[in-house]
Amino acid sequence: MSSRIGILFVGFGGAVSTTSVIASLAIAKGISPPYGLYTETNISTVKDGVLDRHNQKPIKEVLSLLQFNDLVFGGWDIEDQSLYDASLEQGIVPPELIHQLAPELKLFHPLPGVFSSTYVKNLQGKHLIPAATLWEVVQVLQQNIREFQQFHQCERVLVVNTSSTEAYNPFTSVHQTLASFEEGLRQNDSSISPVQVYAYAALASQAPYINFTPSLAEEAPALRELAAKTKTPFAGKDGKTGQTLLKTALAPLFRLKNLRVEGWFSTNILGNKDGLVLDDPGSLKSKIMTKSSVLDQILGYSPYHKVNINYYPPRGDNKEAWDNVDFLGILGMPMQLKINFLCRDSILAAGAVLDLIRLLEYSARHGESGVQEQLSFFFKSPLTIIPDRQPIHDFFKQEGMLKDWLREKAFGVKYN
Amino acid sequence: MSSRIGILFVGFGGAVSTTSVIASLAIAKGISPPYGLYTETNISTVKDGVLDRHNQKPIKEVLSLLQFNDLVFGGWDIEDQSLYDASLEQGIVPPELIHQLAPELKLFHPLPGVFSSTYVKNLQGKHLIPAATLWEVVQVLQQNIREFQQFHQCERVLVVNTSSTEAYNPFTSVHQTLASFEEGLRQNDSSISPVQVYAYAALASQAPYINFTPSLAEEAPALRELAAKTKTPFAGKDGKTGQTLLKTALAPLFRLKNLRVEGWFSTNILGNKDGLVLDDPGSLKSKIMTKSSVLDQILGYSPYHKVNINYYPPRGDNKEAWDNVDFLGILGMPMQLKINFLCRDSILAAGAVLDLIRLLEYSARHGESGVQEQLSFFFKSPLTIIPDRQPIHDFFKQEGMLKDWLREKAFGVKYN
Amino acid sequence: MSSRIGILFVGFGGAVSTTSVIASLAIAKGISPPYGLYTETNISTVKDGVLDRHNQKPIKEVLSLLQFNDLVFGGWDIEDQSLYDASLEQGIVPPELIHQLAPELKLFHPLPGVFSSTYVKNLQGKHLIPAATLWEVVQVLQQNIREFQQFHQCERVLVVNTSSTEAYNPFTSVHQTLASFEEGLRQNDSSISPVQVYAYAALASQAPYINFTPSLAEEAPALRELAAKTKTPFAGKDGKTGQTLLKTALAPLFRLKNLRVEGWFSTNILGNKDGLVLDDPGSLKSKIMTKSSVLDQILGYSPYHKVNINYYPPRGDNKEAWDNVDFLGILGMPMQLKINFLCRDSILAAGAVLDLIRLLEYSARHGESGVQEQLSFFFKSPLTIIPDRQPIHDFFKQEGMLKDWLREKAFGVKYN
Amino acid sequence: MSSRIGILFVGFGGAVSTTSVIASLAIAKGISPPYGLYTETNISTVKDGVLDRHNQKPIKEVLSLLQFNDLVFGGWDIEDQSLYDASLEQGIVPPELIHQLAPELKLFHPLPGVFSSTYVKNLQGKHLIPAATLWEVVQVLQQNIREFQQFHQCERVLVVNTSSTEAYNPFTSVHQTLASFEEGLRQNDSSISPVQVYAYAALASQAPYINFTPSLAEEAPALRELAAKTKTPFAGKDGKTGQTLLKTALAPLFRLKNLRVEGWFSTNILGNKDGLVLDDPGSLKSKIMTKSSVLDQILGYSPYHKVNINYYPPRGDNKEAWDNVDFLGILGMPMQLKINFLCRDSILAAGAVLDLIRLLEYSARHGESGVQEQLSFFFKSPLTIIPDRQPIHDFFKQEGMLKDWLREKAFGVKYN
Repeated sequence: MSSRIGILFVGFGGAVSTTSVIASLAIAKGISPPYGLYTETNISTVKDGVLDRHNQKPIKEVLSLLQFNDLVFGGWDIEDQSLYDASLEQGIVPPELIHQLAPELKLFHPLPGVFSSTYVKNLQGKHLIPAATLWEVVQVLQQNIREFQQFHQCERVLVVNTSSTEAYNPFTSVHQTLASFEEGLRQNDSSISPVQVYAYAALASQAPYINFTPSLAEEAPALRELAAKTKTPFAGKDGKTGQTLLKTALAPLFRLKNLRVEGWFSTNILGNKDGLVLDDPGSLKSKIMTKSSVLDQILGYSPYHKVNINYYPPRGDNKEAWDNVDFLGILGMPMQLKINFLCRDSILAAGAVLDLIRLLEYSARHGESGVQEQLSFFFKSPLTIIPDRQPIHDFFKQEGMLKDWLREKAFGVKYN
Repeated sequence: MSSRIGILFVGFGGAVSTTSVIASLAIAKGISPPYGLYTETNISTVKDGVLDRHNQKPIKEVLSLLQFNDLVFGGWDIEDQSLYDASLEQGIVPPELIHQLAPELKLFHPLPGVFSSTYVKNLQGKHLIPAATLWEVVQVLQQNIREFQQFHQCERVLVVNTSSTEAYNPFTSVHQTLASFEEGLRQNDSSISPVQVYAYAALASQAPYINFTPSLAEEAPALRELAAKTKTPFAGKDGKTGQTLLKTALAPLFRLKNLRVEGWFSTNILGNKDGLVLDDPGSLKSKIMTKSSVLDQILGYSPYHKVNINYYPPRGDNKEAWDNVDFLGILGMPMQLKINFLCRDSILAAGAVLDLIRLLEYSARHGESGVQEQLSFFFKSPLTIIPDRQPIHDFFKQEGMLKDWLREKAFGVKYN
Repeated sequence: MSSRIGILFVGFGGAVSTTSVIASLAIAKGISPPYGLYTETNISTVKDGVLDRHNQKPIKEVLSLLQFNDLVFGGWDIEDQSLYDASLEQGIVPPELIHQLAPELKLFHPLPGVFSSTYVKNLQGKHLIPAATLWEVVQVLQQNIREFQQFHQCERVLVVNTSSTEAYNPFTSVHQTLASFEEGLRQNDSSISPVQVYAYAALASQAPYINFTPSLAEEAPALRELAAKTKTPFAGKDGKTGQTLLKTALAPLFRLKNLRVEGWFSTNILGNKDGLVLDDPGSLKSKIMTKSSVLDQILGYSPYHKVNINYYPPRGDNKEAWDNVDFLGILGMPMQLKINFLCRDSILAAGAVLDLIRLLEYSARHGESGVQEQLSFFFKSPLTIIPDRQPIHDFFKQEGMLKDWLREKAFGVKYN
Repeated sequence: MSSRIGILFVGFGGAVSTTSVIASLAIAKGISPPYGLYTETNISTVKDGVLDRHNQKPIKEVLSLLQFNDLVFGGWDIEDQSLYDASLEQGIVPPELIHQLAPELKLFHPLPGVFSSTYVKNLQGKHLIPAATLWEVVQVLQQNIREFQQFHQCERVLVVNTSSTEAYNPFTSVHQTLASFEEGLRQNDSSISPVQVYAYAALASQAPYINFTPSLAEEAPALRELAAKTKTPFAGKDGKTGQTLLKTALAPLFRLKNLRVEGWFSTNILGNKDGLVLDDPGSLKSKIMTKSSVLDQILGYSPYHKVNINYYPPRGDNKEAWDNVDFLGILGMPMQLKINFLCRDSILAAGAVLDLIRLLEYSARHGESGVQEQLSFFFKSPLTIIPDRQPIHDFFKQEGMLKDWLREKAFGVKYN
């Protein structure tokens, strides 16, 4: 593949998008190894319809996934700051590397964005699209997408939502049909949140859409209807990076060994903007909801499960999780597992974002549309093709589902 | 299934066999829930040759696995102590439960055993088979098996090695053929260790054999030859219970997310007899060897890997592990994972022992012989059908292999 | 000393009082070693006015502290349950020991108590003093004390508050003078909480009073006035047992090495009745307030400090704390300390309760009255002689203050 | 104080000396805050012979301790590398800071040193004093000291040993008297180790001497005799920085609360040159010996105590310790404390080195000689004035001893 792919971030200048862009540049230039990327691992090939475990090939080759130097970046943000300034301020990427990429990073500036203090409490919007109605905002966003695509001569543009988590706001009647939603945009309906506006603009523009946050958007019936109409694929939601990633990889162990989990206590400390936003109970609710159900689904029963998220400034982006699991073995004897994960929020996220871009672009290129459920592997709260069906949370089952899909695409072998 | 199955333990009175027997009794009587047992979980069924994920059934039912009240127990030990006294002394099972099972436990006494201070340093053998040569010892052991089977009218007898880890002693020419091995038994060859004598006696008696310890035995070419000759199945080796279990469940996460593991430091503290025996460098070597290779095989490269085992009396059987993993994410950024596992050595082991008894009995009943590689799931150092082939260590791949085998047996569906 | 001392608990049947009584009985009978008791350690003696570090003597001997077989126990509770039943239900003390002490424990039944759902949300009062006004309640409580003392022929009776934490309710004008408080009792003033009624009754009866909980009582000006009037000593408040104990022992290390603490994150999981009560935000506020100020006072500056308490049923009384400290060394380089404390709430508390009984009894016997500030060592929120003065929180400074006082009493040497 | 003080490091270019020099420069220039330094904290003053707790003053002011811009640095090393190159290679100090101090750091080059592969196994000496006998080496070292002092016009020169830990080698008859030691130097006696040669040269030159390592030197009777003869003060040994620092601060808590410690398991992972040297069993023995005795002395009894040190390259200088303490509370109930210390070896060491330089210089200026026992606060294995007396290990008692000495010096008040 040789032609250009445009990536427009919602929240262009936030920690996740900035780190994703830097990582893409650094890998493309060969400065950094492509660690943290699923699409850089190998897959067993198939020979005569049978798996050939002794012959493994890189996923990116068997599927001809996009190269990182095919990407061009842009996006919207409510703060007007270059990615160079943003990355220095965030303190996630070492300054040496930022300086090395300064020429590119200084050129990246966000377009004005959409903001509502109803949905995000602890931030302020300063760099906003001037428009009387949400409908007018949508026109601006679609024009942004169109112009970006033309300017950079992109074969395709993807929109990736990495903006701050919005307060939990259940869908109303306005979200039920495309018609009612469009009417809501015209009427400035307050139950339509900013990211829903972006999602609408993306899908209406046939731009494949990734929701990396817990905010409610593309799963609304209205937006599913839009995606079907414009034949656009989308994937979500809420990138699975730290504690939940570990939890969905460990819980299967308890299930398979029939070790009875009585309680699972999870606490997190983080000091980045994500933590600040989550200090608002509304945004926190959205997050906790996507984090809570995973255990019950994997285990098949409901242990006592408590998840805490704490804003803790000394730590910055270097998120830390502490988990305690109480479980019973044979004869009902109690045991404990404690996990302390010193991770980096945006570093883990950036790998998943770049994987998703590669794989959703592949879907789009091959004519897929609607929910891409095989990408559940990357999400805390995977969207399912059949709405409201319980998603698969087991990390290894998710990987199995993804690998089966990859093999089917690459080798034409379908598993049941 | 209704007829009786006899289980003879090597090390009958040790912590693992005692706890296994108590657990079997307690589950059979309905006193304890069957936690910690894989064979008590469910498996998706197959319909019209296709997996039916929405219809799960208990593994023990679809395969008609033995019931715990079909089991009768016995064994050998170098110390003459009833299981009642042994269990009180070990402090693993709560005294209330021991008292409840006192009538049965007081009846369990070990037959005299085989001992060599060359192979186990920190223990003393007191209750030994009086015999001039190892060949004579074998005759006694085979007679024990025969008489036990007749007395209890067992359809089949399995031998389970749960004795102390022997010092690492590489195979010599005597282990290469059945003929040379039998000659060695007659000549009292000092390179034949006690557990090899037991393994010979078991396989010669057509008793399926499980090696739950790291000691070298059934993988010797001579004993493989014997198993083939007597058409007897066997499984091993070194039960995967604590730290290695966790390691083989977590390492796949790092591989799949392409998070580069730079170092993995593992330390263990335990204060039971196993810990005491491992305080001898020879026995420790056997153990460390079975623990070390798992990472390289799962990851596909060799991080800095260090495993410590410490005898620490205050802890008794309540083994504790602390692991630290250093790994790199995208942009080469370092992160850490720390795991503190407060487990119970014999409790975790007993579940695996009972699972293995059920599954190896199933193999024997269905005419399988030789290495049962599909049972790799239960072992730190799985034996492979093709000798010296690298075994699969990934916990989830092992489970896949086992489940495929179970489905093939239950539903006649063969996966590639 | 040979005569009897009566101990009346507020919350007689709660985990702390039950465990304290059992521990006292077990130590008195020589069944259990007196671990967990400061008063069982040694102190350097003084010779010719100079400390003689090479001659250490037991504190209990140099001060002739009471023996545990001098104690007789009783108290009030809002649930009518014998200590035998309560202790079996709590699961804190091993059943074997409870059975051994059954004859005594079955005799211990609480008198009816005082309850207000305004002050304790998550419990229900069932066993209550029938009375029209708080003033009448006081008369009953004073009569209880008098009768208990006469019946058991006690030289002195102490009242120890170990009841559930009350919701935080600031003092009002009614708490300012003894006159206004007594008027409030007559008027059933709703700003007077149950434990304040007990504290009044104790001090009015010249019964030395210990507040082992964070509830507001004896520090009220009205009650200080009463203690002065009746010449009664008292000590409080909020027993320092788990996480705060550790924090006040570790923070001095950071101060003395000038390691700059940037943040201290503390989380707790506990599943006992204390945890359940603290699940009410009001009670939690009282608790968090006594936990929060310790760091600033020890360090001399205010790091980012966050304390979480989580009700987590699987753990029962076996409280667990996890702390993370972020601090800077020379050149401003960041480091971290993480502490995981697997403790037992009531076991740690019982030691401190028995120490306090011994030491406050000593104070009373020697004519001390009012706040016993030298007992700060035992409290999270020590009461100071000069009201509203910042208390000393440094564990080692507290111990120095206590030891100086002990030496002055024992050897007549006064330190400055 | 205004005149210059010379500091000569044994191991000039090692991690500890390099970091100490950089920290001294950065603090002197006001670039870095003086965190990690005891001498930058305050002390209560004395008024009319009585402690005035409400009036605290900086220790450095009340004692007129040296300023860091009074210091000039030099030293010996067996590798010829500038401090600029060494610090970049070590990766301890951020590169930005090294670049800022490059002009100074590039000028610092070590003089040739003394080496013996008998005493340090895992390193190689490349930059060595050419001399036929140890006696000739001493002449060179003394000349080095003299010339350095003259060139920099220093009022006084101190020698600080921060070289690699030598293998444990007990003193022989040659170490017993000054005469026998000097004869040994002339005879090239192989029982005299390199650091003993440095210590001799320092003390013979009246240069106050600090031993920051576990190597055996200045406590030899011969060298004590020399220090007495030349009236030179010295302090040692083995800087207390990480795990042992924490242990000696926590053990007093267990003692004072009479919580019975049953076992204390300590493991360390570190990947710097210190770790590499300690991978040799001889050097490890020296280290473990200084680490082991602290618990028994603080607690007054001997719990099961095990200390592991592991060379673990992925971690570099960022040492990590994990401790597990098993202890019993009242009623003999078991509890656990686990501590995970993510520290920085040389960063913690540098603070202590600079403190020791300030305080030993003060001693020398005020005519003290011989062992400076009041500096026990800084050492894992404090030297005592009376040889072979059990040193004080309790961190808070050590601080009390130091503070009493400081107050006596500053305010003339002597405590008993």
